[in-house]
Amino acid sequence: MSKIRMSHGAGGRAMQSLLRERVLPHLVSGFGEVPLSAMDDSGVIEGIVFTTDSHTVKPLFFPGGDIGSLSVAGTVNDVSVMGARPIALSLAMVVEEGMDVEDLERIATSVGATAKKAGVPIITGDTKVVERGAIDRLVINTSGIGMRSEELDHDLAIVGNHRPMASRWLEDRNVADGDAIIVSGSVGDHGVAILSAREGYGFEGDVRSDVAPLNGIIREALKAGGIAAMKDPTRGGLANALNEFAEKSHVGIEITEEAIPIKQAVRGACGMLGLDPLEIGNEGKAVMAVVPQMAEEVLAALRRTPEGKDAAIIGKASRAVRGVVMRTRVGGRRIIEPPVGDPVPRIC
Amino acid sequence: MSKIRMSHGAGGRAMQSLLRERVLPHLVSGFGEVPLSAMDDSGVIEGIVFTTDSHTVKPLFFPGGDIGSLSVAGTVNDVSVMGARPIALSLAMVVEEGMDVEDLERIATSVGATAKKAGVPIITGDTKVVERGAIDRLVINTSGIGMRSEELDHDLAIVGNHRPMASRWLEDRNVADGDAIIVSGSVGDHGVAILSAREGYGFEGDVRSDVAPLNGIIREALKAGGIAAMKDPTRGGLANALNEFAEKSHVGIEITEEAIPIKQAVRGACGMLGLDPLEIGNEGKAVMAVVPQMAEEVLAALRRTPEGKDAAIIGKASRAVRGVVMRTRVGGRRIIEPPVGDPVPRIC
Repeated sequence: MSKIRMSHGAGGRAMQSLLRERVLPHLVSGFGEVPLSAMDDSGVIEGIVFTTDSHTVKPLFFPGGDIGSLSVAGTVNDVSVMGARPIALSLAMVVEEGMDVEDLERIATSVGATAKKAGVPIITGDTKVVERGAIDRLVINTSGIGMRSEELDHDLAIVGNHRPMASRWLEDRNVADGDAIIVSGSVGDHGVAILSAREGYGFEGDVRSDVAPLNGIIREALKAGGIAAMKDPTRGGLANALNEFAEKSHVGIEITEEAIPIKQAVRGACGMLGLDPLEIGNEGKAVMAVVPQMAEEVLAALRRTPEGKDAAIIGKASRAVRGVVMRTRVGGRRIIEPPVGDPVPRIC
Repeated sequence: MSKIRMSHGAGGRAMQSLLRERVLPHLVSGFGEVPLSAMDDSGVIEGIVFTTDSHTVKPLFFPGGDIGSLSVAGTVNDVSVMGARPIALSLAMVVEEGMDVEDLERIATSVGATAKKAGVPIITGDTKVVERGAIDRLVINTSGIGMRSEELDHDLAIVGNHRPMASRWLEDRNVADGDAIIVSGSVGDHGVAILSAREGYGFEGDVRSDVAPLNGIIREALKAGGIAAMKDPTRGGLANALNEFAEKSHVGIEITEEAIPIKQAVRGACGMLGLDPLEIGNEGKAVMAVVPQMAEEVLAALRRTPEGKDAAIIGKASRAVRGVVMRTRVGGRRIIEPPVGDPVPRIC
């Protein structure tokens, strides 16, 4: 009898095949304008964007955030990267008997502050308590709903008058040959911050999680126009996000190692631990595919925001390659695969 | 330092005060037409009904259902009892490493079958895996969205031309003096089935969970007209649901013990175990307050459905009493309090 392995939760290939082979066939997964079977950041039905995330991050508190800020930001971002304005969140907590009420209150404070910062209210909730040992302190699920952003310039067929599109939402399958690939800031910060806090590696002073709601900067980017697809590179990191673009859009992606913003401390920590920063999850970053004519304007719009000041064009979609290919610093070429396992489990 | 206790998850007074004192003040909880602070079955914002539930039921499989059917039915019901038509669900699973993939697949099958029965598609999802010991096999969160039911006859002020209403949704605060209290069928089945399956008491042959999506029968009841408020009596059972009506509507409720449908096997099991069937959770029942002129029509509409064949008028709202008062079989009067603790934990 086959058993669930940690890699089934890593957001990469093992999870995709478990879901595609053993779960999705039993669900009626084709409903909606963006259905479950698209396995995108959110689904869309009757004009409503809808997403869900359960958060099992360990530890609950980490440099730069906690499970509360993470839950709110993660869900706000999943709605926003579809090209939608988040309008409400839910908050469902499963709490272990014996948890300090003060810790729960501190997390509630963080939930409230992050929701306020994002300007998205929590309008429904649920609380369950399970006996000691039945859960590792606290699991939070946040779901979110949103409506199409007024700034999104897709209509059913055209993005910014530049080219036809497969979807009028910022779906992964919208990327086309020549699109610029932009990342909104440095990658790897969140996963390294979590790992360091959990294992006591001592990078905590240098590396903080990037956890942040991105609806504000995404709105600025949309105003510039020409965005075809967008994702937040959480589990599986940039490597997974770019491979999802490539697979679902049937187009290769070429990136340049030098162009990818990675903080020195994150690079150092990854080097020491043998981790690839491209596979490390982020919680306050967006990756987007932009029609080439608009790439500089989107980049400039992002860079005008505090969260997007390190945004960079890191490559482009290209029919000349298969999958995701990176030109390395030393002039070589490296194929970037979606991670199979999970380099850092329980980061979100 | 105070600690979370099992009673904090029981849906009764301990949970209400924990949330009101330590959680809600930190959230911006007043947004929406039905805000979080209403603590009703769902929230409502921009015309969208939105609800969430995390399911920690133990065992995962029980007579009459499993965590999959329970998750779907629970969320469909929370949307429906607001007077809304559920249009989509989310499905977020947190799975323990080592769980049998076959069990997960069996649960996915049940999720799919129940969603199909309810006619509500799952359009977004999330899967997390945690290491052995970090969770008790599986937690499922389902959230749901819905739109106002076309059958709901409230406008902003009037229910079925009978009287003014506080809310145009079927909120708990809409109950008024004289309203008939109707329950859609027998109470206590679910909690007793869970308890029996978990502890091996051997009632499994006689008692099955009532878990079922109620959007169909609620639609029939709404067509009859005159419904002011509705709840699904899950955790805390009928006792808690009626007390929420009474407290939020500032009106007493009088019920008659003889009129409450309780199956013989459930009554017997509760007697042996010292449990009050009114405090036991249900997963396929609705309690409603109906303007008196329409009570018989709503009852007849319910009784025409298989799920509602045992529906009964069990009492009425009355300014003559405070809280919830039951006339007992022997002619006495008993005050029905909301349960403080949880007679059967982890039933949902």
